[in-house]
Amino acid sequence: MLTLYTAPTGNGRKPTLLLKLLNLDYKLNQFEWPTTEIKQEWYLKLNPNGTIPTLVDGDLTLYESNAILEYISENYDKDLKFTYSKGSINYWLIHQWLFYQSSNFAGTMSQTNRYLKYNPNDEWSRNVLLNDWIKIYTVLDGHLKKNKSGWFVGDKFTIADLALAVGNHRRVEKTTGTKYEIEKFDENFPNVKKWYDRVLEIEGVKDILN
Amino acid sequence: MLTLYTAPTGNGRKPTLLLKLLNLDYKLNQFEWPTTEIKQEWYLKLNPNGTIPTLVDGDLTLYESNAILEYISENYDKDLKFTYSKGSINYWLIHQWLFYQSSNFAGTMSQTNRYLKYNPNDEWSRNVLLNDWIKIYTVLDGHLKKNKSGWFVGDKFTIADLALAVGNHRRVEKTTGTKYEIEKFDENFPNVKKWYDRVLEIEGVKDILN
Repeated sequence: MLTLYTAPTGNGRKPTLLLKLLNLDYKLNQFEWPTTEIKQEWYLKLNPNGTIPTLVDGDLTLYESNAILEYISENYDKDLKFTYSKGSINYWLIHQWLFYQSSNFAGTMSQTNRYLKYNPNDEWSRNVLLNDWIKIYTVLDGHLKKNKSGWFVGDKFTIADLALAVGNHRRVEKTTGTKYEIEKFDENFPNVKKWYDRVLEIEGVKDILN
Repeated sequence: MLTLYTAPTGNGRKPTLLLKLLNLDYKLNQFEWPTTEIKQEWYLKLNPNGTIPTLVDGDLTLYESNAILEYISENYDKDLKFTYSKGSINYWLIHQWLFYQSSNFAGTMSQTNRYLKYNPNDEWSRNVLLNDWIKIYTVLDGHLKKNKSGWFVGDKFTIADLALAVGNHRRVEKTTGTKYEIEKFDENFPNVKKWYDRVLEIEGVKDILN
């Protein structure tokens, strides 16, 4: 039985959503957020980084949300509903986008949260972070325009879309009405808007991205 | 024939080092650094993010340095010199550490470079970033202490060690003698020091981390 330790954050919702879409049984340990529990000794034994999510499956204890997506996908999505066959070009492009999400997107989200919460009047940092967001969404929008299907990889919704959609939801949730909100988003990034609207129509998605 | 576009940076050196350790033939396009070339149209067609490295192998064009490490490893390291067999626990732990490197380590490096270069007198940002570094190296040191082999995964040097070692080299290269240098590093992180010294002894490593 899979056991997931998580919370409703940008990274935390990723495995929860994938497990739901795959209709898998698992034991859920969902923390109230924020929590001090993940800095306690019992949890640091599972995940010395003190972050969520963490997945336990038999002898394997795994953290880093996008590694968990890959693990669930390769082991429990045998019909390739949300991935492509191992070693195919699309399989590798999913890896690429997951690393892009992890480094560029989630990194910028984490810095945005930090300055928004602890140093909201630092205009220099706000400007560079807003520029980062615009650069990121320009890359995403351009790619979605180029890839005729309107999905990130191949012609279906995959775990790459999932990670980016959960991230997008988190950005909206954290920045709407703040100095970090991206202006004229739908106008400037119409392909992202269209893509995200389609993601929200997938059965089960709105239960997690609420 | 593999074609690699890269430069001697933290991310750029990763595939160069792996290709060297595996003794593979490839075509190298190494940019002088910094370069404006990666923002030119011809390059953005390969990598719309305008970053290095990018790997081309037949029909596949792949960016994100850690995705490239995984790709080279799975396709060209058939003897599992620097990885473990697909689907094994150690295989997944390598994925975990590559995502950790990409999100936590490289993200902090990129912010450090930014404030060091463009806003070096921002003490608030310096303090939070130095705290991030200390947190990261505390996790790394604790893990190396716990994993008796002294390597990150299993009992040998893998692409997880490679990514973290190239990152560590880059941090030293960029921060030594600056306000972002970590004080008493060897004293505070003895397991990392020991690990890194061992990495440098591997034949070929010093040719790239110089």
